[in-house]
Amino acid sequence: MSVSLLAARWVLPVTTPPIDHGAVAVEFGRIRAVGHLQDLRQQFPDAQVTDFGSSAILPGLVNVHSHLELTALRGRIEEASFQQWIVQLVTLKAERLTPADLLTSARLGCIEAIRSGITTLADTADAAATLEALIESGLRAVVFQECFGPGPEQAEAGLDQLRLKLEAHHDRIARAATAASRLRVGISPHAPYSVSARLYRLATRFAIDHQLDMAIHAAESQDEQRLLADGSGAFGDSFRRRAITFEPPECPTVTYFERLGVLDAAPLLIHGVTIADQELSTLAAHGVRLAHCPKSNSKFGHGVASLHAWQQHGIPVGLGTDSVVSNNNCDLIEEARYCALLHRVHRADSESLTAAEMLRLMTIDGARTLRLDDRIGSIESGKNADLIAIDLSRSHNSPVYDPITAIVFSSSARDVVMTMVDGNILYDGRNVLTLDEPEVLHQTGIVAEKLV
Amino acid sequence: MSVSLLAARWVLPVTTPPIDHGAVAVEFGRIRAVGHLQDLRQQFPDAQVTDFGSSAILPGLVNVHSHLELTALRGRIEEASFQQWIVQLVTLKAERLTPADLLTSARLGCIEAIRSGITTLADTADAAATLEALIESGLRAVVFQECFGPGPEQAEAGLDQLRLKLEAHHDRIARAATAASRLRVGISPHAPYSVSARLYRLATRFAIDHQLDMAIHAAESQDEQRLLADGSGAFGDSFRRRAITFEPPECPTVTYFERLGVLDAAPLLIHGVTIADQELSTLAAHGVRLAHCPKSNSKFGHGVASLHAWQQHGIPVGLGTDSVVSNNNCDLIEEARYCALLHRVHRADSESLTAAEMLRLMTIDGARTLRLDDRIGSIESGKNADLIAIDLSRSHNSPVYDPITAIVFSSSARDVVMTMVDGNILYDGRNVLTLDEPEVLHQTGIVAEKLV
Repeated sequence: MSVSLLAARWVLPVTTPPIDHGAVAVEFGRIRAVGHLQDLRQQFPDAQVTDFGSSAILPGLVNVHSHLELTALRGRIEEASFQQWIVQLVTLKAERLTPADLLTSARLGCIEAIRSGITTLADTADAAATLEALIESGLRAVVFQECFGPGPEQAEAGLDQLRLKLEAHHDRIARAATAASRLRVGISPHAPYSVSARLYRLATRFAIDHQLDMAIHAAESQDEQRLLADGSGAFGDSFRRRAITFEPPECPTVTYFERLGVLDAAPLLIHGVTIADQELSTLAAHGVRLAHCPKSNSKFGHGVASLHAWQQHGIPVGLGTDSVVSNNNCDLIEEARYCALLHRVHRADSESLTAAEMLRLMTIDGARTLRLDDRIGSIESGKNADLIAIDLSRSHNSPVYDPITAIVFSSSARDVVMTMVDGNILYDGRNVLTLDEPEVLHQTGIVAEKLV
Repeated sequence: MSVSLLAARWVLPVTTPPIDHGAVAVEFGRIRAVGHLQDLRQQFPDAQVTDFGSSAILPGLVNVHSHLELTALRGRIEEASFQQWIVQLVTLKAERLTPADLLTSARLGCIEAIRSGITTLADTADAAATLEALIESGLRAVVFQECFGPGPEQAEAGLDQLRLKLEAHHDRIARAATAASRLRVGISPHAPYSVSARLYRLATRFAIDHQLDMAIHAAESQDEQRLLADGSGAFGDSFRRRAITFEPPECPTVTYFERLGVLDAAPLLIHGVTIADQELSTLAAHGVRLAHCPKSNSKFGHGVASLHAWQQHGIPVGLGTDSVVSNNNCDLIEEARYCALLHRVHRADSESLTAAEMLRLMTIDGARTLRLDDRIGSIESGKNADLIAIDLSRSHNSPVYDPITAIVFSSSARDVVMTMVDGNILYDGRNVLTLDEPEVLHQTGIVAEKLV
């Protein structure tokens, strides 16, 4: 019998009510059934039972925005303006890191994600290293291949490069037989201050023609708004210093993207801090999805995104940690707690932003945002067995009156004791099983010395 | 030789620059010296060296506001208005918990604090249980004995009760020989909505006469402001329902306390969310100190306190977690991170609220706020050996470019691997040595069943 039962004090399917003394039946990498342990024992009398004790089993967490390849830069750039931060980041990455270094960095990011109970990432990446690390890691991911090019004359060359990289990625995935079903490739024309209008048109056309998902850093900062409004601000100054031609569209990011046809690709927009509420019906009509990264937005002083209004407009929203260069960790539970507290104080409201809402944001809402909710994001029969267990018996999260409250408001990534993707255990509460953590940490130290 | 050397990759004295490959010499419960390991080895050739490897040794964290006895109520009251939350809290505590239950609860709180690297707490407590648990725990603390009494006719009786409790506390401390130097008792007339003007006058007189420190929940909510302004709001409604006489002073909390003479006792004011900037010179002139509890304030939607303005006025400010019923954890590192991110987004500023500032807030500033900075809050020769070690070699806080950034922005209480007070190790990275954690967790489960 290949059915195995994962049991725990609580099972949280997310889309159906919590189950006390519950279990999940897993077979062939999928969820066969979920229910009370005693019922599932009867249904599968020969199944092996793994009991996680005073833990909660829940769907793996879905991080809708990360940059795994930047993990080795964690804490490297602090106390800078946003524009200075980007320049330093791009410079350090381009001048000091080899592809092998980026692979080390992405591997460390995968280890951190696995240890944190994250089973799916939407990762925005410049390098093939991230795809390689993800194949090794056993994680599920959408990898958005970044492209850059602020100068309009670079647009065709930019698209050609993008096409070549995507072809290489598809070849690589095809060779990684078991990884193929876990990994999807998309594109990410980086941001309005780093990609020309012309490249946005070409990339969008390319995405639509090839049915590729597209993610864009959009409406993140006041500096971006100023650049689009009249070419002023830190990005405008930078363009002029670098003699880059930029015709300001004299409108906000959403209108700019609507005019360029970008919204026709129904992209995943990352951040959206400066999106006005009156722009939301346009986004909803185009099927646009949003990645909310509250800790990153706060650390840069960018502002508080209109999460509640987005949700009221029916726009799919997931939670993202952003890179650890801005966060500085990849802990989606802490991100959810931060999200709840930030919006509560922003809205002067103590009764909304509930733990249950935050759990959905970390799981099924994230899956929907990545259009993966037919496969992941909840514990339902037929879905992929992407499951995690969180220990709720520790001094800092005891007692437990409600397991969801205990997870969202008292726990963190450090309480995860099991991470599973497609029925494969990636983390057993002690060790990451798919990557050599001591070796990756050792290599990270060497990479970091190049970045000092 | 009784000198022992604690060594680590980094030593962070806080009031002097970080030391690479540093060490702290501890003798008779005090810090004898701090410096480079090789220098201290020469100075103390016979000293035993304990090496914490890729950790940082820093002063024990100072939590300037907690309610240890409420730990067993963690997560019990969610999604309520502030006033409803208080009513539920007071009712559950009064009707369901025995003194033994409160002792269990306070013990759990001590365990959580010790595991989190907190070595000093300013705890606001209603019960003798907290003092008992603190004596057992080995922690350093100022215990503020709460008193309540919204009806003016209860004032004298309230003071008499307070006096009796304090006498009992002093007797108890005197019997706990080794604890005497670690524990100090103060008083806490709870809040303007739960203590009459008359009781504030009596309690203040009492505090001044007996040279007792005094802590008050003050300027926490709009409801408190409304009550004082014109008797309206949730607290005013509650007073009318309970037929409690209340003459609104028609002014904000600070003015009210100034008129009552409360500020003459230079109290520790907890929260201070609604304090206006023009009131700060009054507070500074009276030597008032402030406890900033950003996560608690956010969870209730109360607002963002003017931390920066407080500091600019030279008012001593420390960081507090508040009770885990509102937080819902006692992790001062996460509190500091939350504090930095919240104020950055509130001020639209990416370059202030630095990691170094947050480290001071968790240590020397907290010590100063509790008037303990002559003894704790930094690693300096002659100060008490209240020290902790934080492991910075883990996947989620690697690599380390700056140890302070790695602590504040990437680590949490879960990375603490050693907690020491007065040279005594309370936590060795695996076990809490002063309290029976498994037994306390077992008892907590029994207490929680009474609270469901």
